[in-house]
Amino acid sequence: MKQTKPISKAVIKRLPRYRRYLGELKKKGVEKISSKDLSELIGYTASQIRQDLNNFGGFGQQGYGYSVANLYDEIGNILGLNKTYEIVVVGFGRLGQAMASYIDKNEKQFHIAGIFDVSNKIKDVEFKDAFVSTCEDLKEFVQKNNIEIAVITVPREKGQIVADTLVDAGIKGIWNFSSVDLELPERISVENVHMSDSLHALAYYMKDK
Amino acid sequence: MKQTKPISKAVIKRLPRYRRYLGELKKKGVEKISSKDLSELIGYTASQIRQDLNNFGGFGQQGYGYSVANLYDEIGNILGLNKTYEIVVVGFGRLGQAMASYIDKNEKQFHIAGIFDVSNKIKDVEFKDAFVSTCEDLKEFVQKNNIEIAVITVPREKGQIVADTLVDAGIKGIWNFSSVDLELPERISVENVHMSDSLHALAYYMKDK
Repeated sequence: MKQTKPISKAVIKRLPRYRRYLGELKKKGVEKISSKDLSELIGYTASQIRQDLNNFGGFGQQGYGYSVANLYDEIGNILGLNKTYEIVVVGFGRLGQAMASYIDKNEKQFHIAGIFDVSNKIKDVEFKDAFVSTCEDLKEFVQKNNIEIAVITVPREKGQIVADTLVDAGIKGIWNFSSVDLELPERISVENVHMSDSLHALAYYMKDK
Repeated sequence: MKQTKPISKAVIKRLPRYRRYLGELKKKGVEKISSKDLSELIGYTASQIRQDLNNFGGFGQQGYGYSVANLYDEIGNILGLNKTYEIVVVGFGRLGQAMASYIDKNEKQFHIAGIFDVSNKIKDVEFKDAFVSTCEDLKEFVQKNNIEIAVITVPREKGQIVADTLVDAGIKGIWNFSSVDLELPERISVENVHMSDSLHALAYYMKDK
Protein backbone atom coordinates (compact mmCIF):
# COMPACT_ATOMS: atom_id res chain seq x y z
CA MET A 1 0.00 0.00 0.00
CA LYS A 2 1.96 3.07 -1.24
CA GLN A 3 0.95 6.33 0.38
CA THR A 4 0.37 9.22 -2.02
CA LYS A 5 1.15 12.24 0.18
CA PRO A 6 3.00 12.73 3.48
CA ILE A 7 0.78 11.66 6.36
CA SER A 8 0.24 14.09 9.22
CA LYS A 9 1.37 13.12 12.72
CA ALA A 10 -2.23 13.48 13.90
CA VAL A 11 -3.34 10.75 11.49
CA ILE A 12 -0.49 8.47 12.58
CA LYS A 13 -1.48 8.97 16.20
CA ARG A 14 -5.03 7.83 15.38
CA LEU A 15 -4.08 4.67 13.46
CA PRO A 16 -3.03 2.58 16.49
CA ARG A 17 -6.32 3.54 18.09
CA TYR A 18 -8.28 2.30 15.07
CA ARG A 19 -6.33 -0.92 15.15
CA ARG A 20 -6.91 -1.35 18.89
CA TYR A 21 -10.68 -1.11 18.46
CA LEU A 22 -10.67 -3.33 15.39
CA GLY A 23 -8.66 -5.91 17.33
CA GLU A 24 -11.38 -5.96 20.00
CA LEU A 25 -14.11 -6.34 17.37
CA LYS A 26 -12.12 -9.18 15.81
CA LYS A 27 -11.87 -10.92 19.20
CA LYS A 28 -15.66 -10.62 19.49
CA GLY A 29 -16.02 -12.27 16.09
CA VAL A 30 -17.36 -9.17 14.33
CA GLU A 31 -16.65 -9.54 10.60
CA LYS A 32 -17.63 -6.20 9.14
CA ILE A 33 -18.47 -2.71 10.35
CA SER A 34 -19.73 0.49 8.75
CA SER A 35 -17.73 3.67 9.13
CA LYS A 36 -20.75 5.01 11.04
CA ASP A 37 -20.65 2.20 13.64
CA LEU A 38 -16.86 2.42 13.75
CA SER A 39 -17.15 6.14 14.40
CA GLU A 40 -19.61 5.63 17.28
CA LEU A 41 -17.26 3.05 18.76
CA ILE A 42 -14.03 5.00 18.40
CA GLY A 43 -15.47 8.47 18.91
CA TYR A 44 -14.23 10.11 15.70
CA THR A 45 -16.66 11.25 13.01
CA ALA A 46 -17.29 8.82 10.16
CA SER A 47 -15.89 11.34 7.69
CA GLN A 48 -12.74 11.71 9.84
CA ILE A 49 -12.27 7.94 9.71
CA ARG A 50 -12.85 7.77 5.95
CA GLN A 51 -10.48 10.69 5.45
CA ASP A 52 -7.77 9.08 7.60
CA LEU A 53 -8.01 5.73 5.84
CA ASN A 54 -8.17 7.34 2.40
CA ASN A 55 -4.62 8.53 3.05
CA PHE A 56 -3.68 4.90 2.54
CA GLY A 57 -6.09 4.05 -0.24
CA GLY A 58 -9.38 3.54 1.57
CA PHE A 59 -10.19 -0.15 2.27
CA GLY A 60 -13.94 0.45 2.66
CA GLN A 61 -16.54 -0.87 0.23
CA GLN A 62 -19.59 1.25 -0.63
CA GLY A 63 -22.63 -0.22 1.13
CA TYR A 64 -20.59 -2.93 2.82
CA GLY A 65 -18.39 -0.97 5.15
CA TYR A 66 -15.07 -2.33 6.37
CA SER A 67 -13.97 -5.91 6.77
CA VAL A 68 -12.76 -5.89 10.39
CA ALA A 69 -10.02 -8.50 9.98
CA ASN A 70 -8.81 -6.98 6.72
CA LEU A 71 -8.74 -3.41 8.05
CA TYR A 72 -7.02 -4.60 11.23
CA ASP A 73 -4.30 -6.24 9.14
CA GLU A 74 -3.99 -3.33 6.71
CA ILE A 75 -3.52 -0.82 9.52
CA GLY A 76 -1.02 -3.21 11.09
CA ASN A 77 0.88 -3.22 7.79
CA ILE A 78 0.76 0.56 7.56
CA LEU A 79 2.15 0.83 11.10
CA GLY A 80 4.90 -1.69 10.32
CA LEU A 81 3.50 -4.36 12.64
CA ASN A 82 3.71 -7.08 9.99
CA LYS A 83 7.17 -8.01 11.29
CA THR A 84 8.90 -8.68 14.60
CA TYR A 85 11.20 -6.10 16.15
CA GLU A 86 14.14 -7.12 18.27
CA ILE A 87 14.27 -4.69 21.19
CA VAL A 88 16.24 -3.95 24.33
CA VAL A 89 15.04 -2.44 27.59
CA VAL A 90 17.61 -0.13 29.15
CA GLY A 91 16.98 0.62 32.81
CA PHE A 92 15.35 -2.12 34.85
CA GLY A 93 13.91 -0.27 37.81
CA ARG A 94 10.16 -0.46 38.49
CA LEU A 95 9.27 1.30 35.24
CA GLY A 96 11.63 -0.85 33.17
CA GLN A 97 10.18 -3.98 34.75
CA ALA A 98 6.65 -2.72 34.16
CA MET A 99 7.32 -1.95 30.50
CA ALA A 100 9.13 -5.25 29.94
CA SER A 101 6.19 -7.29 31.26
CA TYR A 102 3.74 -5.07 29.39
CA ILE A 103 5.56 -5.63 26.09
CA ASP A 104 6.03 -9.33 26.75
CA LYS A 105 2.32 -9.77 27.54
CA ASN A 106 0.74 -7.47 24.98
CA GLU A 107 3.09 -6.71 22.12
CA LYS A 108 3.81 -9.90 20.19
CA GLN A 109 5.55 -7.94 17.43
CA PHE A 110 8.23 -6.75 19.84
CA HIS A 111 10.66 -9.32 21.20
CA ILE A 112 12.72 -8.36 24.23
CA ALA A 113 16.15 -9.65 23.25
CA GLY A 114 18.11 -7.85 25.96
CA ILE A 115 17.69 -6.06 29.28
CA PHE A 116 20.36 -3.73 30.63
CA ASP A 117 20.82 -1.71 33.79
CA VAL A 118 23.61 0.36 35.35
CA SER A 119 23.42 -1.63 38.56
CA ASN A 120 25.32 -4.89 38.95
CA LYS A 121 22.23 -6.34 40.65
CA ILE A 122 20.82 -6.76 37.14
CA LYS A 123 23.03 -9.85 36.79
CA ASP A 124 20.73 -11.76 39.16
CA VAL A 125 17.69 -10.96 37.00
CA GLU A 126 16.09 -13.45 34.61
CA PHE A 127 13.51 -12.38 32.04
CA LYS A 128 12.17 -14.92 29.56
CA ASP A 129 14.85 -15.62 26.94
CA ALA A 130 16.39 -12.14 27.18
CA PHE A 131 20.13 -11.54 27.58
CA VAL A 132 20.51 -9.60 30.82
CA SER A 133 23.56 -7.54 31.73
CA THR A 134 24.96 -4.16 32.75
CA CYS A 135 25.12 -1.22 30.34
CA GLU A 136 28.79 -1.97 29.61
CA ASP A 137 27.55 -4.71 27.27
CA LEU A 138 24.76 -2.65 25.68
CA LYS A 139 26.59 -1.32 22.62
CA GLU A 140 28.07 -4.65 21.54
CA PHE A 141 24.78 -6.49 22.09
CA VAL A 142 22.78 -4.02 20.00
CA GLN A 143 25.36 -4.18 17.20
CA LYS A 144 25.61 -7.97 17.10
CA ASN A 145 21.93 -8.81 17.47
CA ASN A 146 20.25 -6.54 14.94
CA ILE A 147 18.38 -4.66 17.65
CA GLU A 148 16.09 -2.04 16.11
CA ILE A 149 14.36 -0.49 19.12
CA ALA A 150 15.48 0.50 22.60
CA VAL A 151 13.10 1.25 25.46
CA ILE A 152 14.86 3.76 27.69
CA THR A 153 13.59 3.88 31.27
CA VAL A 154 16.72 5.19 33.00
CA PRO A 155 16.56 8.37 35.14
CA ARG A 156 16.60 11.67 33.23
CA GLU A 157 20.25 12.43 33.98
CA LYS A 158 21.25 9.12 32.34
CA GLY A 159 18.91 9.40 29.33
CA GLN A 160 21.18 11.18 26.86
CA ILE A 161 24.25 9.06 27.68
CA VAL A 162 22.33 5.84 27.11
CA ALA A 163 20.84 7.26 23.90
CA ASP A 164 24.31 8.20 22.60
CA THR A 165 25.52 4.64 23.19
CA LEU A 166 22.49 3.25 21.37
CA VAL A 167 22.97 5.63 18.45
CA ASP A 168 26.64 4.58 18.17
CA ALA A 169 25.46 0.98 18.14
CA GLY A 170 23.13 1.68 15.22
CA ILE A 171 19.72 1.68 16.93
CA LYS A 172 16.83 2.78 14.67
CA GLY A 173 14.10 3.69 17.14
CA ILE A 174 13.90 4.84 20.75
CA TRP A 175 10.87 4.60 23.02
CA ASN A 176 11.88 7.18 25.57
CA PHE A 177 10.55 7.18 29.16
CA SER A 178 13.52 9.03 30.63
CA SER A 179 11.67 12.38 30.90
CA VAL A 180 14.31 14.21 28.94
CA ASP A 181 14.11 15.26 25.30
CA LEU A 182 16.98 13.42 23.66
CA GLU A 183 19.30 14.94 21.08
CA LEU A 184 19.33 12.41 18.26
CA PRO A 185 20.43 12.27 14.61
CA GLU A 186 17.68 12.74 12.00
CA ARG A 187 17.78 9.08 11.06
CA ILE A 188 16.67 7.90 14.51
CA SER A 189 12.95 7.70 15.23
CA VAL A 190 11.85 8.57 18.74
CA GLU A 191 8.60 8.43 20.65
CA ASN A 192 8.64 10.21 23.99
CA VAL A 193 6.40 9.32 26.89
CA HIS A 194 6.70 12.34 29.17
CA MET A 195 4.75 11.33 32.26
CA SER A 196 4.82 14.77 33.84
CA ASP A 197 3.50 16.47 30.68
CA SER A 198 0.59 14.06 30.68
CA LEU A 199 -0.21 14.53 34.39
CA HIS A 200 0.06 18.32 34.13
CA ALA A 201 -2.29 18.35 31.14
CA LEU A 202 -4.79 16.44 33.29
CA ALA A 203 -4.48 19.09 36.00
CA TYR A 204 -5.30 21.75 33.38
CA TYR A 205 -8.36 19.88 32.09
CA MET A 206 -9.66 19.64 35.67
CA LYS A 207 -9.07 23.32 36.34
CA ASP A 208 -10.75 24.15 33.05
CA LYS A 209 -13.95 22.20 33.89
CA MET B 1 -4.67 35.33 34.50
CA LYS B 2 -8.07 35.09 32.75
CA GLN B 3 -8.00 33.44 29.34
CA THR B 4 -9.87 35.25 26.58
CA LYS B 5 -10.77 32.39 24.19
CA PRO B 6 -10.95 28.59 24.48
CA ILE B 7 -7.44 27.14 24.36
CA SER B 8 -6.72 24.37 21.84
CA LYS B 9 -5.64 20.96 23.14
CA ALA B 10 -2.40 21.34 21.16
CA VAL B 11 -1.47 24.45 23.16
CA ILE B 12 -2.29 22.72 26.45
CA LYS B 13 -0.07 19.79 25.46
CA ARG B 14 2.82 22.22 24.89
CA LEU B 15 2.50 24.12 28.19
CA PRO B 16 3.92 21.36 30.43
CA ARG B 17 6.86 21.13 28.05
CA TYR B 18 7.52 24.88 28.33
CA ARG B 19 7.36 24.59 32.09
CA ARG B 20 9.69 21.59 32.11
CA TYR B 21 12.38 23.49 30.21
CA LEU B 22 11.90 26.63 32.28
CA GLY B 23 12.28 24.53 35.43
CA GLU B 24 15.64 23.32 34.16
CA LEU B 25 16.76 26.85 33.33
CA LYS B 26 15.66 27.92 36.80
CA LYS B 27 17.74 25.15 38.38
CA LYS B 28 20.72 26.39 36.38
CA GLY B 29 20.18 29.88 37.79
CA VAL B 30 19.13 31.44 34.45
CA GLU B 31 17.04 34.52 35.20
CA LYS B 32 15.75 35.62 31.81
CA ILE B 33 15.50 34.23 28.31
CA SER B 34 14.47 35.60 24.91
CA SER B 35 11.75 33.80 22.97
CA LYS B 36 14.44 33.11 20.37
CA ASP B 37 16.70 31.29 22.85
CA LEU B 38 13.67 29.58 24.38
CA SER B 39 12.65 28.42 20.91
CA GLU B 40 16.10 26.98 20.18
CA LEU B 41 15.99 25.17 23.50
CA ILE B 42 12.45 23.77 23.23
CA GLY B 43 12.39 23.28 19.49
CA TYR B 44 9.29 25.32 18.67
CA THR B 45 9.50 28.51 16.61
CA ALA B 46 9.73 31.77 18.56
CA SER B 47 6.46 32.92 17.00
CA GLN B 48 4.80 29.65 18.06
CA ILE B 49 5.93 30.25 21.63
CA ARG B 50 4.77 33.89 21.62
CA GLN B 51 1.45 32.79 20.10
CA ASP B 52 0.94 30.06 22.72
CA LEU B 53 1.74 32.35 25.64
CA ASN B 54 -0.36 35.18 24.22
CA ASN B 55 -3.37 32.90 24.75
CA PHE B 56 -2.85 33.63 28.41
CA GLY B 57 -1.83 37.26 28.15
CA GLY B 58 1.79 37.08 27.07
CA PHE B 59 4.26 37.50 29.99
CA GLY B 60 7.14 38.62 27.73
CA GLN B 61 8.66 42.10 27.79
CA GLN B 62 9.79 43.74 24.55
CA GLY B 63 13.59 43.71 24.45
CA TYR B 64 13.87 41.86 27.75
CA GLY B 65 12.39 38.47 26.92
CA TYR B 66 10.87 36.28 29.61
CA SER B 67 11.67 36.15 33.29
CA VAL B 68 12.35 32.42 33.72
CA ALA B 69 11.07 32.13 37.31
CA ASN B 70 8.01 34.25 36.56
CA LEU B 71 7.07 32.38 33.39
CA TYR B 72 7.65 29.04 35.16
CA ASP B 73 5.24 30.08 37.91
CA GLU B 74 2.69 31.58 35.53
CA ILE B 75 2.54 28.41 33.43
CA GLY B 76 2.26 26.42 36.65
CA ASN B 77 -0.72 28.57 37.61
CA ILE B 78 -2.30 28.11 34.19
CA LEU B 79 -1.91 24.35 34.51
CA GLY B 80 -3.38 24.36 38.00
CA LEU B 81 -0.12 23.38 39.69
CA ASN B 82 -0.37 26.15 42.27
CA LYS B 83 -2.11 23.74 44.65
CA THR B 84 -1.67 20.20 45.95
CA TYR B 85 -3.87 17.38 44.67
CA GLU B 86 -4.80 14.45 46.85
CA ILE B 87 -4.57 11.35 44.67
CA VAL B 88 -5.01 7.60 44.83
CA VAL B 89 -3.22 4.93 42.85
CA VAL B 90 -5.49 2.02 41.90
CA GLY B 91 -3.66 -1.13 40.87
CA PHE B 92 -0.29 -1.75 42.50
CA GLY B 93 1.43 -4.12 40.13
CA ARG B 94 4.75 -3.13 38.57
CA LEU B 95 3.26 -0.19 36.69
CA GLY B 96 1.34 1.07 39.73
CA GLN B 97 4.50 0.86 41.80
CA ALA B 98 6.50 2.61 39.10
CA MET B 99 3.99 5.45 38.82
CA ALA B 100 3.68 5.80 42.60
CA SER B 101 7.45 6.21 43.02
CA TYR B 102 7.59 8.49 39.99
CA ILE B 103 4.90 10.78 41.41
CA ASP B 104 6.37 10.68 44.91
CA LYS B 105 9.83 11.60 43.59
CA ASN B 106 8.96 14.11 40.89
CA GLU B 107 5.47 15.55 41.36
CA LYS B 108 5.38 17.55 44.58
CA GLN B 109 1.93 18.94 43.69
CA PHE B 110 0.41 15.46 43.79
CA HIS B 111 0.20 13.71 47.14
CA ILE B 112 -0.45 9.97 47.14
CA ALA B 113 -3.06 9.65 49.88
CA GLY B 114 -4.12 6.09 49.11
CA ILE B 115 -3.03 2.98 47.23
CA PHE B 116 -5.49 0.23 46.31
CA ASP B 117 -5.27 -3.14 44.64
CA VAL B 118 -7.61 -6.07 44.04
CA SER B 119 -5.13 -8.49 45.61
CA ASN B 120 -5.11 -9.03 49.37
CA LYS B 121 -1.30 -8.98 49.23
CA ILE B 122 -1.61 -5.20 49.07
CA LYS B 123 -2.23 -5.21 52.81
CA ASP B 124 1.46 -6.02 53.42
CA VAL B 125 2.52 -2.98 51.38
CA GLU B 126 3.73 0.27 52.93
CA PHE B 127 4.17 3.41 50.88
CA LYS B 128 5.14 6.66 52.60
CA ASP B 129 2.12 8.02 54.50
CA ALA B 130 -0.42 6.51 52.11
CA PHE B 131 -3.44 4.50 53.25
CA VAL B 132 -3.07 1.10 51.61
CA SER B 133 -5.92 -1.37 51.14
CA THR B 134 -7.97 -3.50 48.74
CA CYS B 135 -10.40 -1.96 46.25
CA GLU B 136 -13.32 -2.69 48.60
CA ASP B 137 -12.28 0.40 50.55
CA LEU B 138 -11.67 2.60 47.49
CA LYS B 139 -15.04 4.33 47.22
CA GLU B 140 -15.31 5.29 50.88
CA PHE B 141 -11.71 6.50 51.01
CA VAL B 142 -12.11 8.74 47.97
CA GLN B 143 -15.35 10.19 49.36
CA LYS B 144 -14.01 10.87 52.82
CA ASN B 145 -10.58 12.25 51.91
CA ASN B 146 -11.36 14.77 49.23
CA ILE B 147 -9.44 12.79 46.60
CA GLU B 148 -9.42 14.61 43.27
CA ILE B 149 -7.35 12.38 41.01
CA ALA B 150 -7.05 8.62 40.56
CA VAL B 151 -4.19 6.94 38.74
CA ILE B 152 -5.61 3.74 37.23
CA THR B 153 -3.01 1.06 36.46
CA VAL B 154 -5.24 -2.02 36.66
CA PRO B 155 -5.45 -4.44 33.68
CA ARG B 156 -7.71 -3.36 30.81
CA GLU B 157 -10.56 -5.70 31.78
CA LYS B 158 -10.73 -4.05 35.22
CA GLY B 159 -10.38 -0.45 34.01
CA GLN B 160 -14.04 0.49 33.51
CA ILE B 161 -15.22 -1.13 36.77
CA VAL B 162 -12.62 0.77 38.77
CA ALA B 163 -13.48 3.99 36.93
CA ASP B 164 -17.21 3.52 37.70
CA THR B 165 -16.41 3.15 41.40
CA LEU B 166 -14.26 6.29 41.32
CA VAL B 167 -16.96 8.26 39.49
CA ASP B 168 -19.56 7.17 42.09
CA ALA B 169 -17.14 8.34 44.76
CA GLY B 170 -16.91 11.79 43.16
CA ILE B 171 -13.45 11.70 41.59
CA LYS B 172 -12.67 14.70 39.35
CA GLY B 173 -9.78 13.47 37.23
CA ILE B 174 -8.44 10.13 36.03
CA TRP B 175 -4.92 9.41 34.80
CA ASN B 176 -5.63 6.24 32.89
CA PHE B 177 -2.96 3.59 32.20
CA SER B 178 -5.42 0.70 31.84
CA SER B 179 -5.19 0.61 28.01
CA VAL B 180 -8.94 0.93 27.64
CA ASP B 181 -10.88 4.05 26.70
CA LEU B 182 -13.11 4.68 29.68
CA GLU B 183 -16.75 5.73 29.45
CA LEU B 184 -17.00 8.70 31.79
CA PRO B 185 -19.46 11.51 32.51
CA GLU B 186 -18.65 14.87 30.89
CA ARG B 187 -17.65 16.36 34.26
CA ILE B 188 -14.72 13.98 34.71
CA SER B 189 -11.37 14.91 33.19
CA VAL B 190 -9.28 12.07 31.82
CA GLU B 191 -5.80 11.75 30.42
CA ASN B 192 -5.06 8.42 28.77
CA VAL B 193 -1.60 6.95 28.46
CA HIS B 194 -2.05 4.23 25.84
CA MET B 195 1.32 2.49 25.78
CA SER B 196 0.53 0.41 22.71
CA ASP B 197 -0.57 3.45 20.67
CA SER B 198 2.73 5.10 21.50
CA LEU B 199 4.84 2.05 20.62
CA HIS B 200 2.95 1.47 17.36
CA ALA B 201 3.42 5.09 16.34
CA LEU B 202 7.15 4.58 16.86
CA ALA B 203 7.04 1.54 14.56
CA TYR B 204 5.40 3.71 11.90
CA TYR B 205 7.99 6.49 12.21
CA MET B 206 10.75 3.90 11.75
CA LYS B 207 9.07 2.36 8.72
CA ASP B 208 8.54 5.84 7.29
CA LYS B 209 12.26 6.77 7.57
